[in-house]
Formats: sequence, structure tokens, C-alpha cells
Amino acid sequence: MSAPAVSSMRWNGDRLLLVDQRKLPASLEFATCTSARDVAAAIRGMIVRGAPAIGCAAAFGVALEALRRRTQAPVEFRRGLDDACAALTASRPTAVNLVWAVQRMRRALPDGAAPPIAAARLLEEAQAILDEDVRANRAMGAAGAGLLPARAHVLTHCNTGALATGGHGTALGVIRSAVEAGKDVHVTACETRPYLQGARLTAWELQREGIPVTLITDAAAGFVLSRGGVDAVIVGADRVAANGDVANKIGTYPLAVLARRHGVPFYVAAPLSTVDAAVASGADIPIEERGADEVSGFGSERWATAGVPIRNPAFDVTPAELVTGLITERGVLLQPDAARLRALLGPDPDRNTEF
Amino acid sequence: MSAPAVSSMRWNGDRLLLVDQRKLPASLEFATCTSARDVAAAIRGMIVRGAPAIGCAAAFGVALEALRRRTQAPVEFRRGLDDACAALTASRPTAVNLVWAVQRMRRALPDGAAPPIAAARLLEEAQAILDEDVRANRAMGAAGAGLLPARAHVLTHCNTGALATGGHGTALGVIRSAVEAGKDVHVTACETRPYLQGARLTAWELQREGIPVTLITDAAAGFVLSRGGVDAVIVGADRVAANGDVANKIGTYPLAVLARRHGVPFYVAAPLSTVDAAVASGADIPIEERGADEVSGFGSERWATAGVPIRNPAFDVTPAELVTGLITERGVLLQPDAARLRALLGPDPDRNTEF
Repeated sequence: MSAPAVSSMRWNGDRLLLVDQRKLPASLEFATCTSARDVAAAIRGMIVRGAPAIGCAAAFGVALEALRRRTQAPVEFRRGLDDACAALTASRPTAVNLVWAVQRMRRALPDGAAPPIAAARLLEEAQAILDEDVRANRAMGAAGAGLLPARAHVLTHCNTGALATGGHGTALGVIRSAVEAGKDVHVTACETRPYLQGARLTAWELQREGIPVTLITDAAAGFVLSRGGVDAVIVGADRVAANGDVANKIGTYPLAVLARRHGVPFYVAAPLSTVDAAVASGADIPIEERGADEVSGFGSERWATAGVPIRNPAFDVTPAELVTGLITERGVLLQPDAARLRALLGPDPDRNTEF
Repeated sequence: MSAPAVSSMRWNGDRLLLVDQRKLPASLEFATCTSARDVAAAIRGMIVRGAPAIGCAAAFGVALEALRRRTQAPVEFRRGLDDACAALTASRPTAVNLVWAVQRMRRALPDGAAPPIAAARLLEEAQAILDEDVRANRAMGAAGAGLLPARAHVLTHCNTGALATGGHGTALGVIRSAVEAGKDVHVTACETRPYLQGARLTAWELQREGIPVTLITDAAAGFVLSRGGVDAVIVGADRVAANGDVANKIGTYPLAVLARRHGVPFYVAAPLSTVDAAVASGADIPIEERGADEVSGFGSERWATAGVPIRNPAFDVTPAELVTGLITERGVLLQPDAARLRALLGPDPDRNTEF
């Protein structure tokens, strides 16, 4: 049953290989990126998705651009990097890890260093961001696994696994760590319309590792929670506001409301790179609205009535009061609010993954 | 924009024509039924769906069988009808209109009448059931339209229109009646996974009549309700228990929970043939679990990870306490409970649509 853990991306000397997540689960293929433009297109086109993974990919996008331009004059090199950073930052609006990673890459750019030296330093930094993300996931996994009973039924949404991160995963990382710790975990995965990350990616990741999983439609989560026996709902996050409000994949907020009604703990697993201290509350988080095509059908099948207007918000906001605990690489923050989150982040929230 | 209202079925002298709802919205085709077996297969195979529509179709199924057997000896005729009634009743488990309609047809069978006379009487009764359903929908529409403001944004789930009934519709009938009364109604339709009745049927019905509709995924309903501006959630029902609990299409219960959280009234439009006075509460309503194929993909596309276990409950139960009002052909029952529902049904709940 078991297979080696997959990674969402691999650095290959002079190029970034991304698992083409549009093609899963039918086939495991890689897309090759050799420039920031390639990476921005891969993020926009959902070849790579998941807040931490797009942060890591964007960091490599900056490094790739620096490598590509390392023979340029310093002024030209710098201008090219500025453009690359802007394009990467603009590739998707909701996940803050993207902004965070690009800013961190900018800070790593040595003032006045020759382009080849700067490029080498940026590649080092991108690798560090990826490595830290995996370490943060492992730390979250250890912290979160302790929240689950020895036999646990966990309901999750979207994909928050190795594919959504540098490796291991956030919410799925907690599940993986619990299984590694000898716990008996059964997962109910919501299919996660419209992009079907649950059906395509989460089911795939869990199945190949032999972790029992049952797939349901998003609309069936209320039925499953109402029948009892769910020990926890665990999800990831695309951005956490300073007050603890959580923007995550569309459909997360209904799960939080249902979990509260049924007395089931609702956990959000997210590295501190997902916290945006500059955004006061969820109301200030920009919510990406995506195209109608994702909703009107899938692949070659179109089932929606032709011409019907479609609204496709990709994320929703769960208020902090519905979050039982925020699982981070620095431990579990129960009942997150502005004061507790500020205390956890410490004095320099911009450097908040260097734990 | 406007087109004549569609009907889910048409009696054609010696056969029942059913709109093949599996083929919508791509094409409007009819399936022909000449026996109870044909009708039971059409119900089971979702050629016809929607609690009131399958009740009407089942009634014609009994009539068709009687016509088919009208030259048989009385004993044989009677045995054939008994078998037909059993097969029709067993064709789907949750909607009670099916049981109700078949029982009503049995009661209409004259004791000792010659088969040809009995067959004519049964056909009359089936036609009466269909006519009464349309009248009940019109009465519900009139009662429910009064609940909406002059400019209304209504969120609905599944298909509860002309296709789900004998004509006009339950929840969509309320919307239609409000529009006919000059109200300006905008509908947000949940796509209704897995069978996509919202995307395929509700959007199609509303679009052809020029009633503005926006399609969303089921998971986006929380986002839409949280942003404000929704005046009412209106849904149909497959079975209402004696205490007012409502079994309806999977995903209804989360909408009720979200509506309550956001102070949005949650209405259930259902003819009294949907009330099952013999079932004390929602916990006693059998919930149909359908096949994995509906969830794993659509048409020729399969997106779910191959081999992953799938659970596909087709209905969920909304407790009466979340129902702001039950819209029936006898008026709106606010805060339905056992006592109020008993009072509305009157002394003979078995004959509860003969208003």
C-alpha cells in the first residue's frame, strides 16, 4: 500500500520541477520552470497550488530569474528581479505565503553584490524557505498529532498535504504525524468543488500511503458530522489575519459552523508564514474569484446550463471564534485571538518562520 | 427570454412521457413508459426525480399496469397490480410521496370491479393526483410569495421546479409565483453535487423563463450568506416527519445551519403529501445511499482517485427548530412542530392533499 512521500517540487540544479497537479490523479507528471514567468504561470494555472507550496515555488521563481540574469549588468539584473517579484506576487491574491516568500527573497538580496553572487545567495534562500517549510510541517504535525485520540476520525477539506506544501503537509501533515505516532486515523475527505483537490489530491496522497480515507461531496459534511463519531475537523489556511480569522478554501467556513454546532473541535494547521500581521481581520483579506469554467464542468464535460452566470469565490473566511486551535510550528494556539497571536509571533512577525 | 413552463411528465392516451432529466440541459428528450416496470426503472434511474414528481409518476405507473392487464382475469389482474405497487414503492426509499401516491392508488381500486373498469378508475385517480399536485404548488406559490420582499435575493438548493413536481414547483414555485406577482427576484442556485440538479435543472428552468439566476458550488453558500443580502433560503422536501424535521437533498442541512447563523429565514416548501405522519422524527427517515459513480466523476470524466471508498448519502435531515416556516398548500406553518403540524393536517392525514 505504502509509497515514498511525494513532494510538490524538486530543484534540479538549474530548473524547478513542479508536480503538475492538474493531471493528478490520472498521471504523475512534472512541469519544468526555468524563469519567474514560468513559475508565475504555474501558480496562476494551478500546476502548483496550496499556500505554502506556492510560497516555496515563488521563492524559486525569484532564484531562477536571478540565475537567468546573472550575466547581466547590475542595474538590469535588479530591474529584472523587481519585475519578477511583482509578477510572482500578483499571480494569486489570497494566499499570503506568496507575498511573504517574495519579500523574504528581496530581503536576502545582498546590497550591491555582483549578480552571480546575488543569484547564488537567492538560490540558497529559496532552498532555506523550502527546507523550513518542511520542518515547520513536521513541527505542526508533532504538535497537532497530540490533539487526536488513539483512534481518530478526522474530517478534512481541500488538499493540505505534501502537494500543498514543501512536503509532509499542514492539516494532512498532522494526520501523517499521528499515523507515524501509531494512531489509527480514518480520514473523511471532502471532494472540494470546484477544483476537486480533495477527490484528486488528498485521496491520492492518503491512498498511496495506506491511510484509510473515504471521499464525500462537500454538501455531505453536515450529514457526516450530524451522525456523530467525528473527532476533529482539521483544515489548512491561505491567510490568517492578525485577529485569528482564517481565509481558506471555499467551503471551510460551513465546516467550522457545522463543527461548532456538533461540538467537534475545529483546528487550522498553518505555518506562521501564513499569518498576515498587517491584516486586522478576515474582512480585509482579498478573496480571489476564479473563472466560471471550473464550476460549469470538468475536463471535456460541461453540465451547467449554458450561459448561466456563475460566481466562483475560491476562498471563504472563518472567524477566529470558530477556531478551536491554530496548529503552528510553535505549538497549538487554543482559541486564537489578536493578543494570543501577537504573543506567539513575537516582536518580528516578518521573520516568523525562523523558529 | 421566456418560454412556456415545462412539465416533468405528460399522459399521452396510453403511455406516460417523462422528461429524461438525465439529459438536461444538453437536450430535452422524453422517455416513454408503458408499464409499472418502466416507471419504476425511470424513478430508480433518475429519469424522473423530485419527491412530488416521483409520486405522480408512480401513480401513472399503477394506472399503466392496470391498463396493460385490463383483459386479464380479476385474480391475475389484482396480483399483477400488487406486484407493481410493491416495485414502485421500492424504487427509491426516502421520498414519501412515492408511498403516499401508491397507497392512494390502492385505495382508489374499486373492490370487485371488472379489470377494465378498475383500470379506467385508476387512470382517473393518477390524473387527479397530478392535477392536485399542480394546484398544491400554485397554492404554495401564492402563500410563499407573500414571504418575500418586493426585491428579493433567494438562495435555493437542488431542483424544486416544474421538473421536480407535476408542474410549477415547490420552492421554485414560490419563486415563480413571486415573479408572477411582480416581484423582482434574483436566485442563487447551489449546483447540488453530486447529481448537479441545481446546475443542470434549476438553472435551466429559471433561464428559459428569464428569472435571473447565479450558479454557485454548494461549498460557496457559506460565503454568499456571510456577505449579506440574502433574503431567504427556500428549499423543497422529500419527507417531513410528524415533528417537522425535514429530509431533503444532501446539503440542505448545512444551508439551514448557515441561514440560522446569519439570521436569514429558512423556508421549506412542500405539499402535505410530503408529510409522513407515521414517522415521529427525522431520525426515523431512511436515508438513501447512492452509488460511488455519481461522486467519482460525471459522464465520461472520472476525477476521483481510482479505488478510493466513497460515501454518497442522497439526503440529510434538517431539524424542525431550524425551519422558519413550512410553506404548504394550506398556508405557511411558522416554526413547525408536532402540535402545529398535526393541527394543519387535520383528522385524516392520509388524505392530506385533498384540500
